[in-house]
Parts: sequence; structure tokens; C-alpha cells
Amino acid sequence: MFKLAELFSNDTIKAILDRYKLIWSINHALSLLGWDLETYMPEQGVKERSIATSQLSVLAHKLLIDESFVRLVDKASDMKDLNDYERGVVRVLKREIEKAKKIPPKLVEELSRVTSEATVVWRNAKAENNFKVFEPYLAKIVDLMREVADKLGYDEHPYDALLDLYEEGLKTRDFDRVVEVITPRLKKILDRVRSEGYYPESHPLEDREYRVEALKRVNKSILELIGYDPKTLRLDVSAHPFTTSMGVKDVRITTRYEGKDFRRSILAVIHEYGHALYELQIDEKLATTPLAKGVSLGIHESQSRFWENIVGRSRDFVDLIYSIVAEELEYVREYTPEELYRYFNIVRPGLIRVDADEVTYNLHIVVRFELEKLLVKGEIKVSDLPELWAEQYEDKLGIKPKTYSEGVLQDIHWSGGSIGYFPTYTIGTIVAAQIKHAMESDLGPLSEVISSKKFDSIKTWLREKIHRWGSTYDPKTLMKKSLGEELNPERYIEYLESKYIKI
Amino acid sequence: MFKLAELFSNDTIKAILDRYKLIWSINHALSLLGWDLETYMPEQGVKERSIATSQLSVLAHKLLIDESFVRLVDKASDMKDLNDYERGVVRVLKREIEKAKKIPPKLVEELSRVTSEATVVWRNAKAENNFKVFEPYLAKIVDLMREVADKLGYDEHPYDALLDLYEEGLKTRDFDRVVEVITPRLKKILDRVRSEGYYPESHPLEDREYRVEALKRVNKSILELIGYDPKTLRLDVSAHPFTTSMGVKDVRITTRYEGKDFRRSILAVIHEYGHALYELQIDEKLATTPLAKGVSLGIHESQSRFWENIVGRSRDFVDLIYSIVAEELEYVREYTPEELYRYFNIVRPGLIRVDADEVTYNLHIVVRFELEKLLVKGEIKVSDLPELWAEQYEDKLGIKPKTYSEGVLQDIHWSGGSIGYFPTYTIGTIVAAQIKHAMESDLGPLSEVISSKKFDSIKTWLREKIHRWGSTYDPKTLMKKSLGEELNPERYIEYLESKYIKI
Repeated sequence: MFKLAELFSNDTIKAILDRYKLIWSINHALSLLGWDLETYMPEQGVKERSIATSQLSVLAHKLLIDESFVRLVDKASDMKDLNDYERGVVRVLKREIEKAKKIPPKLVEELSRVTSEATVVWRNAKAENNFKVFEPYLAKIVDLMREVADKLGYDEHPYDALLDLYEEGLKTRDFDRVVEVITPRLKKILDRVRSEGYYPESHPLEDREYRVEALKRVNKSILELIGYDPKTLRLDVSAHPFTTSMGVKDVRITTRYEGKDFRRSILAVIHEYGHALYELQIDEKLATTPLAKGVSLGIHESQSRFWENIVGRSRDFVDLIYSIVAEELEYVREYTPEELYRYFNIVRPGLIRVDADEVTYNLHIVVRFELEKLLVKGEIKVSDLPELWAEQYEDKLGIKPKTYSEGVLQDIHWSGGSIGYFPTYTIGTIVAAQIKHAMESDLGPLSEVISSKKFDSIKTWLREKIHRWGSTYDPKTLMKKSLGEELNPERYIEYLESKYIKI
Repeated sequence: MFKLAELFSNDTIKAILDRYKLIWSINHALSLLGWDLETYMPEQGVKERSIATSQLSVLAHKLLIDESFVRLVDKASDMKDLNDYERGVVRVLKREIEKAKKIPPKLVEELSRVTSEATVVWRNAKAENNFKVFEPYLAKIVDLMREVADKLGYDEHPYDALLDLYEEGLKTRDFDRVVEVITPRLKKILDRVRSEGYYPESHPLEDREYRVEALKRVNKSILELIGYDPKTLRLDVSAHPFTTSMGVKDVRITTRYEGKDFRRSILAVIHEYGHALYELQIDEKLATTPLAKGVSLGIHESQSRFWENIVGRSRDFVDLIYSIVAEELEYVREYTPEELYRYFNIVRPGLIRVDADEVTYNLHIVVRFELEKLLVKGEIKVSDLPELWAEQYEDKLGIKPKTYSEGVLQDIHWSGGSIGYFPTYTIGTIVAAQIKHAMESDLGPLSEVISSKKFDSIKTWLREKIHRWGSTYDPKTLMKKSLGEELNPERYIEYLESKYIKI
């Protein structure tokens, strides 16, 4: 149906892909169940939905580690004459099977139970600014994730095992180096921006209200400008923006409408569009295989950040959308395109990660990375976190939280057991800048590409270099192959300096 | 979670229900995949969607006939001390398992292949008024369904086996009797209506156009009037109105907006609401069990027809919604409430079943029943159908189709292999009238209940008598228990006579 045969000729691989279709189908259904839960499901459907989700997740896990399936994968992994796609299938499945087999069912179950309780507790704790009620849950989660790291195994640092869950091959040592390079330079750029004063710390447009229907039309027009195809992509509304892929021909994104500060909704759409485009431009011959998804969270985030930051917050792009926005939100006409650009690029050291700008965002990540590393190594206790959090913020951003809610309780991640996840946001930002660099050597200055609305050439470039491969190559190999270099934080700093420091 | 334990105490049954949760979960996912396909899925998602749907359907089938599961069900079926719910579980599962085991996988596969091709061919054939291209497909489908009947087995008539697929326990002989009773009397009522002239054959409101947004608000208000709870029910838009149940707390209905003849969209909403209410009022302690669904197509249709015809097309109901409709569609003010009532009750012998009114609708069904019976018995050939169809319409409705498209090609059912399905529409209409009769002896005249907006007492009555049981009792037992009588076409004729014949 999707002409798998053109890419896969090995019979063992074909047998694997044939069996894998059922696992893919269950994941397809799970994606839709998840999307629907956040968008259209009547609220009382939640109990039945959670039963179905848990039953299907357990089933997918069982099918993955089914003996005869594992034997097939092992057999293929001993073969020498596989092509890149076939090797990719083996690599991805071996990773998934290994994870599924190394972590004992009892541990999975306990994690699932603790984290689903913890997420509820965390929500209340945050609302009530009460760290104490969340503390025992987080302590338990840290213990369990340390056990996960032990079961998975690692050479140098237990945190390596957790990083690898989200970013194949990423080591603590690699990210330490990234942090060393970027932290002092981000602080320096921030100081310069604040002393120069061109990029504002706040803007009157933040307080202007909008009608939801009007901004929905703006978002639709912007999506059309950058290449929206409703035959394969939907935009809906949810409490928190996200992207779900149901396959290479069906991806859904969402945004939110808070009633004021319209750039937040627009930038969320552009961000999620970046994720969506990755999934939509995977070679359709990979459909229903283990390769039909973005290769890692970091590479995925590079796509969303490229579109949100490097395209969406650029002067040329803001100029392009000025009239689109002004047509629906008349008060925008009170401001020049340059003012709109400054509004899109407010730089303000704050306490809340999700509100952070391009310059300060990764300092928030560094805080979390430093603390997670210590937690997983067992060098600090959960009860020490609030104080350490404040110290870190003082050190990295020069401000301290006054409440737990705007400090250690702000992120949902830990309550769900996602420890080792945050660094992928930084990886994404860095890779986005590397993509800009590589793309410009092929297409010329991005500012010209954008101002001449050649979004198709951006999309084609991304498809050929990154998207079409899906998970065929591991992230490091893909980067070397497509960008000609490994993870290189210099590109990111260069990009920020050239944008934010007027010389 | 749903307190199953209050209804089920037998350990074998509990083990069955525990295993069944996975089958339920797959069906839950399949329902959502189906709903999404018709409402929100980007159109190019269809290939991947059909792979997922077919993989999950095959899996559900496998799990159902899994040896150890079947052994459990067999064990339970030998037990003497089961309560009604427990016996219901055994009855429903034994039926499903028997069907799944008796029809060989090869036959299922061939039917699935032929019908999915045939549906496409039928669509084109209908559009091009070309019976010849559809004929070989229909012939094949009839052959396969005759084989299905043979495999399922029957005592008297092969058509019995097919009827039972949709309406547990219904025999050809039973429906023959229904046809004998209703056919002459429907014709007589039709003659009287036409000679009296109160109910019009056409109405100027059929041609009035509406803005979709305005009618959406009307439909929402009408749903609110009769008891819409958005926490458990959604209304969306699709090409053909339908109801999907994802569980006892999550049901979705749809309607269509054609731009004119607004009663069609309104009546579709009320019709689907009837189906939805059935699923939503099933005892929540039955959630995730094989009993958590309406017991048969006929009983289901009785719910939708009760709301659409007996409530929705009643004079009192039309009076109630007059101001709701007139507020959004101003031209309605040009007509009196009585005129609106006459518009809602146009009686016109026509060629198209789905456009038929209360009086003529079941004559359309009789035509199909007579032809299906002969086809399945092998007494006529598919090539004879157009001529026989015309004869039947001449006889039952006094008109003949001029094209295949408005004749033998009008329904989608046969192309999908649904032979034996049509009679359930008539069963539904009859049972709806029986419900009216039984309800009135408890609640008093329905016209007063409606005009005083006591929809809650209607809902409570339906819940206690029909809905709460789900599939606990087979349709015949349920009717005797709840309505005090078996299928009784007299009630239906009485209802029509009292509404349509002014004495």
C-alpha cells in the first residue's frame, strides 16, 4: 500500500515489518485516544479512556517483547547485508525491546501508579504553593528513576541512562560541555541586551486583548503562508499546545487562546507546525514501520524551535505577518512592524521557563539539568530542592522565586517521571541554529528566503536533510550526514549574538 | 473503578470480565477511529487509518476466540447459580464467539475484500445510474452471505441466520407476520391522509435556505431542551448523521447541514439523540463489560424513532421549538406553529427511503425485505432486481423509479454486505409505538408530558425500563419484562391512525 518494498528487500526485515503493523496500529490508536482526550472528549469520558489507554499500552509492550518477534529482530541484527533503512529498523526495535525487557514489569507498574497519583498531587501542590505535599511523591519518583537507570545500565553516570531514553546516545558528559560553553555566554548576551535596551523587557501589546475567533483566523492565515495543507494537518485548541502524529499523512497540532498577549498563541502554532512538518515529511514509504517517526526529542525540538524562533521571531517574518495580524486585530496598526518585531522578541529574565525568550530559555534548562544530575546520582535530597532551585536561579538569571509555584513546582515533567527530558529542549535550540547555518550555505541568507516567501524551499531542504529519514539514522549520525557536524553550541551562540547584539 | 463488583460476584464471570477489558478497549479505540474518520480526520489519513482499523479488528476477533477465553465462557455457561447480569454476559459472549468461530476466516476476509471494493463501485454506479457495473459485485455478495447463513445455520429459512446477526432471535416468519399486518393498513392510512389533505405532500419551507451557524444554534438549543449534557455527549457534523458510543460516559452524535429544508437537520439530531441516550443511560456498573451496549439494532432504532417521530414530530413538541427555530430563522415567523407542524409531517409517497415520512417509511422496508428473502433463498437472481424493485414500488407505493439510482441502487447497505439489516428499522418503529403506549400508562398522555417539558420523566422511564440493562436481556425478554408484551405491530398502526386519520 505504501510501497514498503521499494525500501525493504530483506525477507526477515519484511517479516518484522509485517508483524510490527499491529504494534504500529495500537500506537496509532493510542495517539488518537490521547489527542481526543485533550481536544474533544466529553469530560466524563476520562475513566473509560484511561482504562482503554492502559490496556492498549500494556498490550503494545507485550507484543514488542514477544519471544518470536524478538527472535526475528535478533536474527536480522546478525545479518551483514542490510541497507540503511533495514539497519534502522533493527536499531530502533532493539532499543525499544531492550528498554522493555530491562525494566521489570513491576517497576513499570509502580512508576505508572506513582506518577499518575503524583501528577494529581503536583497540580494541587502548585495551585496551593505547597511543596511539602509533593515532596514524598517526588522522592519516590527519583528513587524509581534511579532504579530505572540501574536496570538500563550506564558506563559513567546514571543520568546517562535517562538522557538516552529521550535522546539516543546523549551522555551527561556531552551536555556538561554544552552547559559550560553556553552558560557564561548567554549571561553575557543577556547583560548586553539589557544595557542596550533595543529588545524591551515588556511591551504594551502584552496586555491587549483579542477575540478568539479573530486570532483563529490569524493563525490559519499564518499557517497558510508557511504551507498548511488541511488534507494532512489539523489545527485545534487545547489547554497546552501540542503535536500528535497519527501517521505520515495525518498530524494534528493545537494552540491555546488566553484572550490577551496574542504572540503566545501565534508562536505556539508556528512551534507546533515545526513538529508537525517533521512527521509529515517522513518518506511515506516508511509509513507503519518503526522508522515512521522523528528520531529523538532533541531533533524534534530543533524543528519546532527553528520555525518558532529562527523563522517566526525574525524581523522578516514579523514584517510578512504584520498585515495579517493587523487585519484582524486593528489595534496592531497603532504600532509599526518594527514595534511588532520588538514585541515578538521581548527579553526578560523571569522565573517561568515556558514564558522565557530565546536568550534566557536555556538558562532555565541548565538549572534543571544541574539539579537532576545531582538527584539521580544521589548527591542531593528532594527536600534540598527548593533552596538549591533558588540558588541556581540567583546564579543563572539573577532572580529568586518567592513561592514554590513559581519555582520548583512549575513544571509538570518530574511528576510524570520525565527526568532527563529537559536537556532535549536545549539540544533542539542548538540544532536549530546549526540547521540555519547549513541551510544558508545552500539557500543563501534566510532573511531573503523568508522575505521572498520561499517557504517551500525551506520545507524541501528540511525534508531532504532531516525529515524524510524518519528514525533511519540515530541522531548523531543524522547530524553528521545532514549538517556536516556534531552538536555544536557555537552556532547557537553565534546566532544569538548576531541577532541580539547590535555592534 | 466502575464498581463492577456490585453486579458480578461469580469468580469465573469476574475472570471473564477482566480478560474482556482488553477486547472492550480495542473496540473503544475502533469506535474512536471510526468517529474521527467521519468528523475530523485529515482526508489523506485514510490509508493509514484503514490499516490500523483492520489490524485492530482482526486482533479483537482473535482475542474473542482465544481458546483459554472460550474455555472460561464455556465453564460459566454450565453454571447454575448466575444472576441475570452474569447470565447476560455468558449469552452475549457465546453469541459473539459462535459467530466468530462458525464463519471461517477465509470467508470473513473475502467478504471484507469484496465489500470494500463493492462500496466504491456502488458509489460510482449510483452516481452514474449504472446497475450493470454493480451487478457482479452484488451477486458475489449475495453468494457470500448465503454461505454465511449456511455456516451460521438455521431451522427454517436461511434469511433467519442473517436477521439474527442484527436482531437476536428474529425469524423470517415473525417478520412475515409483521408485513402482513402493516402493509395493507399503511396503504389505507396513506390513502386517507392523501384524501383528507391536512398533512401536505410538500411545503414551501422545504425550499427555504438557512445559514449553517444559525441552525447549529437551533440544534444546540433543542438538545438542551431535551436534556443535553456536554460532559458526556458531543454534537458534530458529518456527511451522514450517526451515533458512536465510546462508553457509558462518552457518546458522540452528528448531524448534517445541507443549507435548506431545516427539519432534516433538526430531526437527525433528535433521532441520534435517541440512540445516544440509550448508551448513556446504561448502568455505569456495566461499563467495559460485554453488556455495555444497546441489545439490538431494533431496540436501538426504537429509541431513535421514539424521539424523532413520537416526540420530535408531535404537535406539542413542534409548538415548544417554534420560538427556538423562529429566533434564528426569521422567515419561520411567516408561518404559524401549526404550519411548522405540517412542515414537520409532510406525507408523500416517494422513491427514496431516507426521505420517507412516518406513514410510508416502512413500505420501503417491506420492499427490501421481500427481495432480500428471495435473494437469500436463491429464488431470484440479482439481475432480476431492477424489474422486481419497480414492481414492488408500484405495488406498495404506487410509483416506479425511472432510474437505477432512485431505485435499486439507492441504499449503501447491500454493498457492505448488510443483508437482513433493513427489517430492524421497522422493528424500531413498532417498538417505539409500544414504548409510547407503555409510557403513557405510567406517565399519562405524552402530549401533556411534552408540553410541560417533563423530558426528565421520559428519560427516567426509558432508563428504568430499557436503557439501564444494556444487553443484559435478549430483545424479546427485555420487551416482555419492560413493555409487558412481545413485538406488537398493532400499537404502531394505532399510533399512526390516531395521529394521521382525523375522524
